[in-house]
Amino acid sequence: MLSVLGRGLQPNAIRKLTLLLGNKQVISLAAGAPSFETFPVGELAEISARVIRDRGKVALQYGPTRGQPALVEEVAGILRTRGIEGCKPSEIVMTTGSQQGLDLISRVILDPGDIALVELPSYIGGIIALHNAQAHLVGVQQDEGGIVISDLREKIARAASEGRRVKCLYTIPNFQNPSGVTLAAERRTELLDIADEHDLLIIEDDAYFDLYFDGERSRLVPLAALRPDRVVYLGTFSKVLAPGLRSAWLRAPDPLAAKVELAKEGADLSSSVLDQTIVVEAIREGLIERRLPELRRFYQVRCSAMVNALEKFAPPGARWTKPIGGFFILMELASGADATAMLLEAIEHGVAYVPGQPFFVDGSGANTLRLAFSKETEEAIAEGVERMCRVFKSSVARVSA
Amino acid sequence: MLSVLGRGLQPNAIRKLTLLLGNKQVISLAAGAPSFETFPVGELAEISARVIRDRGKVALQYGPTRGQPALVEEVAGILRTRGIEGCKPSEIVMTTGSQQGLDLISRVILDPGDIALVELPSYIGGIIALHNAQAHLVGVQQDEGGIVISDLREKIARAASEGRRVKCLYTIPNFQNPSGVTLAAERRTELLDIADEHDLLIIEDDAYFDLYFDGERSRLVPLAALRPDRVVYLGTFSKVLAPGLRSAWLRAPDPLAAKVELAKEGADLSSSVLDQTIVVEAIREGLIERRLPELRRFYQVRCSAMVNALEKFAPPGARWTKPIGGFFILMELASGADATAMLLEAIEHGVAYVPGQPFFVDGSGANTLRLAFSKETEEAIAEGVERMCRVFKSSVARVSA
Repeated sequence: MLSVLGRGLQPNAIRKLTLLLGNKQVISLAAGAPSFETFPVGELAEISARVIRDRGKVALQYGPTRGQPALVEEVAGILRTRGIEGCKPSEIVMTTGSQQGLDLISRVILDPGDIALVELPSYIGGIIALHNAQAHLVGVQQDEGGIVISDLREKIARAASEGRRVKCLYTIPNFQNPSGVTLAAERRTELLDIADEHDLLIIEDDAYFDLYFDGERSRLVPLAALRPDRVVYLGTFSKVLAPGLRSAWLRAPDPLAAKVELAKEGADLSSSVLDQTIVVEAIREGLIERRLPELRRFYQVRCSAMVNALEKFAPPGARWTKPIGGFFILMELASGADATAMLLEAIEHGVAYVPGQPFFVDGSGANTLRLAFSKETEEAIAEGVERMCRVFKSSVARVSA
Repeated sequence: MLSVLGRGLQPNAIRKLTLLLGNKQVISLAAGAPSFETFPVGELAEISARVIRDRGKVALQYGPTRGQPALVEEVAGILRTRGIEGCKPSEIVMTTGSQQGLDLISRVILDPGDIALVELPSYIGGIIALHNAQAHLVGVQQDEGGIVISDLREKIARAASEGRRVKCLYTIPNFQNPSGVTLAAERRTELLDIADEHDLLIIEDDAYFDLYFDGERSRLVPLAALRPDRVVYLGTFSKVLAPGLRSAWLRAPDPLAAKVELAKEGADLSSSVLDQTIVVEAIREGLIERRLPELRRFYQVRCSAMVNALEKFAPPGARWTKPIGGFFILMELASGADATAMLLEAIEHGVAYVPGQPFFVDGSGANTLRLAFSKETEEAIAEGVERMCRVFKSSVARVSA
């Protein structure tokens, strides 16, 4: 009865981990969600009651597929401040989280067997969306400066030598999930030149754009600002306001945005109109913008706590990334270590992480893990990292014994 | 750059009509939305503020793909009251409107070229979802008792004779959109026997279940209650609470529901958590249930106003359905009439409707139109029908002249 897609759908690693954890009380370095402490609860309660009372005729009714016109305008304005000059409402589609943007663009551009390039490692939700469009996923190496340009060239050339065309590259250039790595400025232009050369579409997922720690905004120029015709740009209010509102956007060159809108019409008619109406007010009242400095400090402090704990407790041979923003650190254990195998023991010792292998579409990364510093307090992070490292060290000791 | 799906995406008739209307002030017998007068604005304003204030940690955070556990439980309970005995939470997936349920089930079961049967006429959103899964759509005749069983048999036999298999049948058995027709009780069992015989999955869209006018609940037993293993059942809070909350559900046999959940994870991670949290409260406080008698009267009065106006003003040779629930009447003009061609003139005379042809996947129905009695007041409905019929009559007069 099932389609090819239906038969292929299998629970991913994070889902399995959630089932494994059940209701166990552990320090979670696994959860990739923003801290609930950052949600402006009082303000949002007030805004939601107000928009329903004063504009319930709109906020509770069906809305346009593309999104509430006022919100689309605000988002176009936000993108102009990010350097996407002349960004117009006709380029924007509001989506149910960036996940929907990933799903829609994948469906609109990919046929079964088309090659999509993804970073090694990459975000699982992005991998799933591309996979559900039945694309053939090929991984591109990253180092501390993001995508390794020579490897990108090599992967494109290899596909060509097999008579296959690469259709797109999915990238999270800022504070990547799961690696925490940021794509270096000079590589951004190189990458776009390659995209031009080989007629690749870039899918740029910039979920963490606002959450930088070092103040050097110049580093973070979106690819979409450099070459708007070549890039589909995804952003979200999930990390800077509240993910339960499921309010995100996709920006694409005009004709492609129109196709995405039509795909969205079949997918859900529109995202929550109430959520969108609340977000418009939050933007207009400055609720998002004025909290950003505080949010950046909030996550920076937690990131530092994690880096400090890793420096103190990490087992020999381990390395980790030093993010300048976002939620995540990727830890690499000595080669031969198996982060998946040690997870159960870590959970028994009261700490959870996400094994890295599922983020690597080439099956590598068995000795890596993703650590999120977004959810727990500084104290819990320090304690969690210590517990986890104790498990890693004792496991190595057992293996060597 | 586009996929087969991407290239195939084209604006549908309702979308084109919306563009055509722009901001013109007309009596709309076109809009298929519930009346905003039915939204419990004050209650929802209060509930939304309360759930954010008291449970913002949950309502504003990411939530499980399947839906808020409390809501999934409530929906399983609702389905048991509809006769789906022993309905369990593991059979439910909360969706962003029923449109998302249609999209997800289509993707999970249909490969390109598979045959999906739909009613003549059928809901455009359902047609789009099946079409986006690249299914081959085949229409089945309806009369005043819904699907014509002999035609259903014939269409299945014809497919078999071409060596093709029919995979599913999409039906709206109660107060169908766009025809207003209800599937007769004896045909429900016949239809399910045929489905068993040919191993068809039934996709039952019961968006209007609660909005019956005649009190004869016995007529409305869902197909899913009669044969739960054979039927995917879609329901929604859009018509009885507020569509802007985009809260609906899909119920499927357990293993299929699990596949739909996985497809939804790739599609949007989860629907609005705030919306779901509000709906749970609305159910628990009895806000939905206690308003139903009033809602039924509200739409029944408008339906009567439309039927009365049609009896008074309709041109010779016209016929129309007499719904016992829902939002819609299908009008059929004398053969040779072209509802699409007359629409512009109708709009100029201050009234809009939806031409019926796009609802018919076999290209028939040029002389039909969908009339919604859900949006306008009784007075506006009477006035709108009169204006519209005047256009139809003068057009006939011109053609005969």
